[in-house]
Amino acid sequence: MLDRIRVVLVNTSHPGNIGGAARAMKNMGLSRLVLVQPEEFPSGEANARASGATDILEAAQVVETLEEALVGCSLVLGTSARDRRIPWPLLDPRECAQQSLEHVELGGEVALVFGREYAGLTNEELQRCQFHVHIPSDPEFSSLNLATAVQVLSYEVRMAWLAQQGRPTKTAKLETTAMLDSVPVTSDDLELYYGHLEQTLVEIGFLDPAKPRHLMSRLRRLYGRAGISKLEMNILRGILTETQKAARGESHKRRDD
Amino acid sequence: MLDRIRVVLVNTSHPGNIGGAARAMKNMGLSRLVLVQPEEFPSGEANARASGATDILEAAQVVETLEEALVGCSLVLGTSARDRRIPWPLLDPRECAQQSLEHVELGGEVALVFGREYAGLTNEELQRCQFHVHIPSDPEFSSLNLATAVQVLSYEVRMAWLAQQGRPTKTAKLETTAMLDSVPVTSDDLELYYGHLEQTLVEIGFLDPAKPRHLMSRLRRLYGRAGISKLEMNILRGILTETQKAARGESHKRRDD
Repeated sequence: MLDRIRVVLVNTSHPGNIGGAARAMKNMGLSRLVLVQPEEFPSGEANARASGATDILEAAQVVETLEEALVGCSLVLGTSARDRRIPWPLLDPRECAQQSLEHVELGGEVALVFGREYAGLTNEELQRCQFHVHIPSDPEFSSLNLATAVQVLSYEVRMAWLAQQGRPTKTAKLETTAMLDSVPVTSDDLELYYGHLEQTLVEIGFLDPAKPRHLMSRLRRLYGRAGISKLEMNILRGILTETQKAARGESHKRRDD
Repeated sequence: MLDRIRVVLVNTSHPGNIGGAARAMKNMGLSRLVLVQPEEFPSGEANARASGATDILEAAQVVETLEEALVGCSLVLGTSARDRRIPWPLLDPRECAQQSLEHVELGGEVALVFGREYAGLTNEELQRCQFHVHIPSDPEFSSLNLATAVQVLSYEVRMAWLAQQGRPTKTAKLETTAMLDSVPVTSDDLELYYGHLEQTLVEIGFLDPAKPRHLMSRLRRLYGRAGISKLEMNILRGILTETQKAARGESHKRRDD
């Protein structure tokens, strides 16, 4: 589905930016790159900055005009600096990604259009876009590097795509022991722990049963918040048991003395 | 408020990436850059790629160790590739930004830590981070350029910040002690705690320095996740001190025996 979203770079000056854009796209699962009159392409610098995304550069389509780049597209989104004389429907990158995904889901083709490094897109080019996309930068220093702008939009497309697929945005592959480690402890186990902790704190002289103050409730809040796993609970209980032994003069260490 | 979020680049090889990161930060309103053992800095290439963000490079702090870079931070977030043996609390960039903003709102300092271009952060460095952040890239081609990774996280920070500024200010009236209690502990205090904890576990015979296994890293993960307040840290340190006294036969209780 992501192959129906193309990235169009208009009149790029620095081939390194084309390579950086290709890398950013491939990182995010996008593959279709269209170059409108690039100043230098193909280029060794582009290949170097692509850092393994050379397949995207090799498959890139080089065309003479923006119209050619947009053939078949039913949704065209142009990146733009904030202030334009003619107000236009403006999206932020997140909305841009949502619109794009909704559009390809309906069977459409989408173009994300990026302008020149210094001058951006011309007013004429911007008027070929249904929506303008503004990456919310600091107004005092608003011009993003071209490849990082491609990165931001591609990232938002991927986040929207993952959400749409119902896939997690973070997938830590857990091994078996790690799985065990992620099983949360039950609240009755937690209660047994608090009892053991309180008893131990009394034994080491940290908690005075006559003046308990808020000590236990603070510790409950802390450990409750942490979401202890079973494996972690075993560790914490083990520490208490050894603490009690040490306090009673039974620990391994002390026996060695 | 964004000046309480620092970007930490560890052992960067290419000065161009430092410049690119500075530009990305400035675009998004971030300003504090800390460099841990950069291979080449200052550098003309960094200045060129910064493209006007040279003020950030000039103000950048260059340090020898990650610990120095994290001084004063109470929330440390490390960027990480997907698969790690010990699973760690994992955030996507959006969650990372939300956590960061909530944290600075409470008066804390936040570090976003980025590793080497090819090798990322070491396991030891990752264990200094309370959370890992994974930019959801295509598993087939997952390694982002360093400057574009900085761009994505900085962008999400800005999006979260803009959203926050648009909202009515949250005015939960906290009591004075509750205020103190909600001040998060800094990562250097956390390191002191881990040192004290490890020492104590050795003294009570729970941790064998010859076979430490994953014990300390599991405990780091647990306490890192919990977001310990200063007041809670005082309690935890107090427990360790009393445990040591008890193990050495110096506790109040034992003297009463």
